[in-house]
Amino acid sequence: MQGDTISAIATAQGEGGIGIIRLSGGQALEIAGKMFRPASGNSLDSYASHRAVYGRIVDEDERTVDEAMVLIMKGPHSYTREDVVEFQCHGGVMPLRKTLALTYSHGARPAEGGEFTKRAFLNGRLDLSQAQAVMDIITAKTDRSLKMAAGHLSGQFSQQIKNFRQEILGQIAHLEAAIDFPEDEVDDVVTEKVAEKVIEIRNYITKLLKTAGTGRILRDGLMTAIVGKPNVGKSSLLNALLQEERAIVTDIPGTTRDSIEEYANVGGVPLRIIDTAGIRATEDVVERIGVEKARQMINDAALVLALFDGSRPLDAEDEEILELLQGQEAIVLLNKSDLQSMVTAEELSAKANVPVIEISTKENHGLDALAQAIQQKVYGGEVIADEGSFVSDERQANLLRTADNHLAAALQTIEAGMGLDFISIDLRSAWEKLGEITGDTVGEDIIDEIFSKFCIGK
Amino acid sequence: MQGDTISAIATAQGEGGIGIIRLSGGQALEIAGKMFRPASGNSLDSYASHRAVYGRIVDEDERTVDEAMVLIMKGPHSYTREDVVEFQCHGGVMPLRKTLALTYSHGARPAEGGEFTKRAFLNGRLDLSQAQAVMDIITAKTDRSLKMAAGHLSGQFSQQIKNFRQEILGQIAHLEAAIDFPEDEVDDVVTEKVAEKVIEIRNYITKLLKTAGTGRILRDGLMTAIVGKPNVGKSSLLNALLQEERAIVTDIPGTTRDSIEEYANVGGVPLRIIDTAGIRATEDVVERIGVEKARQMINDAALVLALFDGSRPLDAEDEEILELLQGQEAIVLLNKSDLQSMVTAEELSAKANVPVIEISTKENHGLDALAQAIQQKVYGGEVIADEGSFVSDERQANLLRTADNHLAAALQTIEAGMGLDFISIDLRSAWEKLGEITGDTVGEDIIDEIFSKFCIGK
Repeated sequence: MQGDTISAIATAQGEGGIGIIRLSGGQALEIAGKMFRPASGNSLDSYASHRAVYGRIVDEDERTVDEAMVLIMKGPHSYTREDVVEFQCHGGVMPLRKTLALTYSHGARPAEGGEFTKRAFLNGRLDLSQAQAVMDIITAKTDRSLKMAAGHLSGQFSQQIKNFRQEILGQIAHLEAAIDFPEDEVDDVVTEKVAEKVIEIRNYITKLLKTAGTGRILRDGLMTAIVGKPNVGKSSLLNALLQEERAIVTDIPGTTRDSIEEYANVGGVPLRIIDTAGIRATEDVVERIGVEKARQMINDAALVLALFDGSRPLDAEDEEILELLQGQEAIVLLNKSDLQSMVTAEELSAKANVPVIEISTKENHGLDALAQAIQQKVYGGEVIADEGSFVSDERQANLLRTADNHLAAALQTIEAGMGLDFISIDLRSAWEKLGEITGDTVGEDIIDEIFSKFCIGK
Repeated sequence: MQGDTISAIATAQGEGGIGIIRLSGGQALEIAGKMFRPASGNSLDSYASHRAVYGRIVDEDERTVDEAMVLIMKGPHSYTREDVVEFQCHGGVMPLRKTLALTYSHGARPAEGGEFTKRAFLNGRLDLSQAQAVMDIITAKTDRSLKMAAGHLSGQFSQQIKNFRQEILGQIAHLEAAIDFPEDEVDDVVTEKVAEKVIEIRNYITKLLKTAGTGRILRDGLMTAIVGKPNVGKSSLLNALLQEERAIVTDIPGTTRDSIEEYANVGGVPLRIIDTAGIRATEDVVERIGVEKARQMINDAALVLALFDGSRPLDAEDEEILELLQGQEAIVLLNKSDLQSMVTAEELSAKANVPVIEISTKENHGLDALAQAIQQKVYGGEVIADEGSFVSDERQANLLRTADNHLAAALQTIEAGMGLDFISIDLRSAWEKLGEITGDTVGEDIIDEIFSKFCIGK
């Protein structure tokens, strides 16, 4: 069954060599035939699926809109499993807009955000966690976040969930067989075996849940504040971090053009630096950043990079900042290790209660040690080594926790010696919650919500 | 002959569903084979040219970077006539950057701006005016500018130039035949025929040159100032013009993020509105735009839209603005035709020495008449009706003018009764200048200059 035909610009906005308009649905081929003329003079249907055809996009009066390539992918061998057509035209606003308008006037309708991927999910080409990974690949901030998303897309993460569900279903089957042929002695043997298995699954879930914090950081970035008193080198540190690899800058939709997010890639961990504009402005011109500003930034941050100047004695302002760090995830940096030292790392460490890293933003020294310290904090106690298996978002983590609670309830039910069918109910609840992660047992509203966060054209 | 292998991101920067990395050159297929694994398990060379293949992009350790489609187009059946490979991966910064880096590490080098199209030109797939049209399609601001660029790409414009050259070459051949077999009576007959033909070609060139002004406006936009005293409705007019069809906004590279160009599409004519930010700011908050500001904007403009308030009597400030319009290309708009009239169109027209259009930005009335007036100004005395044949840039116009001068010189040489070989020299100069338009007789430095204006990936 193919849906109605949807159409959208699939490439990023702006000017590029190539831009793609994508159609999917029952009328896609017919629409393509109306608006594309192969250069060969043959009709478009004479070409095999997955064959790139060169020619012209024409308007209703057969006037050339653009030269283009068209690629027809007949369902089910396509992204959505429906008939899909891609027009590769020149990547300018006008040719793309004009080509898109033609698809509409020939019968397609505008695709909603994520609608192509939603169809891929609904038609069984991807499970829900794989579908979510599509967007995570597009918005990935570092190589490690890309690795996590690519692992999810390939099914590496959801395979674990599917295994848990398979195991639970097996236990339910044992229980139900025992219910159908009740014999008291057998019951005890069955419940004992079920309990053993449930404990084993819970252990795996616990391990998996430990990756959730790291997964979320890899996906969304670690909110990081750079604090320190004036002229300590915050702006230099910021530049050094952003220059490691050309940083990813994104406009925040719906805000002014000045409000941008900047991500530094530090050892594969995406740091979302708070108030980069402020740091630049204050160190470039007259610096008015004070303890009050530091307090506010530390409040918003998940990680604080606190800078101190090793070439000047610590003063009251430094002491106040050290005060603010108490109870925070902080890394203390002693800058200007290239100059004569007035403060030692030991002194500072004793005051800060955390290890101190000596750096020189001027000589680009100590940044590797900083990257290692950040990796250590983020990956700290992880058992699973491969990002592709990590829990990547809060929804998944919550569902895993709820499933785990149902498993715990099953164990209590067993403990309390209640009937087998009660145990079965608990297990079934866990099985269903896990199914919401892969989308096997999920409601339409949740599906809609997940895909509404996608960009148009995906 | 294939060049070394070049690689670039071919789609626009930013986040989209799909992004494309393009390679071209002798090693393109080999590089693709190293970094792509078809899902079928077959090797990539087992697929025919122009066949889209689904699979995974892998790094040096065979780890999946992204799922992707690859499209191999073997030369000469490709954009550059070399072997071309396109990776369609997910359109995020990380997957594209990572895939691009892999092409480099397997032996490709970064493509320069316009290098793909330059190769298409050097390998004879496009002539120079067609190659220039590629960039014009990408940056087209309205449907009419797209039509002009698409006409150029299809060769509609350069065919005219080729015809001129063919005709001139024919005359040169006649002259040279006569030189080889000199007979005085024949000479006169020949020069008379040549003169006739040259006059005919000059007439065509004159007609063609008349399109150059319109062509440049369609390509680059018409610098337009909206002036008028405070609260006359400049901001409303701006919004009405920009909303006709969602306006094209481009960042100007190398300037601050606030400096943007906005193009209004008015009847297919791209108006590049001067100081849109200023117009918005001044009408939104306290308006401080005055006669001084109007003077400056009128100075920069090729067209002035001067707004007057029909519901208030003309005052000294209005009179000053009317003064500034003298000698300018201006359209006078009498706004607030929805309110009680205190100034008539006739009164205003008499003062302004130009026709006046009554509009109501509040009721969206009169904008069609404005569009017609603009079209009339821009297309005014055109003889050739189809934008695809227009002269689209100053380089082409200059070469046409120079060629025409050589033809004029040929006529003078004939008039002066000088030898046939002198006429032949003039004609050959004209033939060569026309050849620089199509790129048949153009130096490497000019080619480099033209393609350096292209974006990377095209």
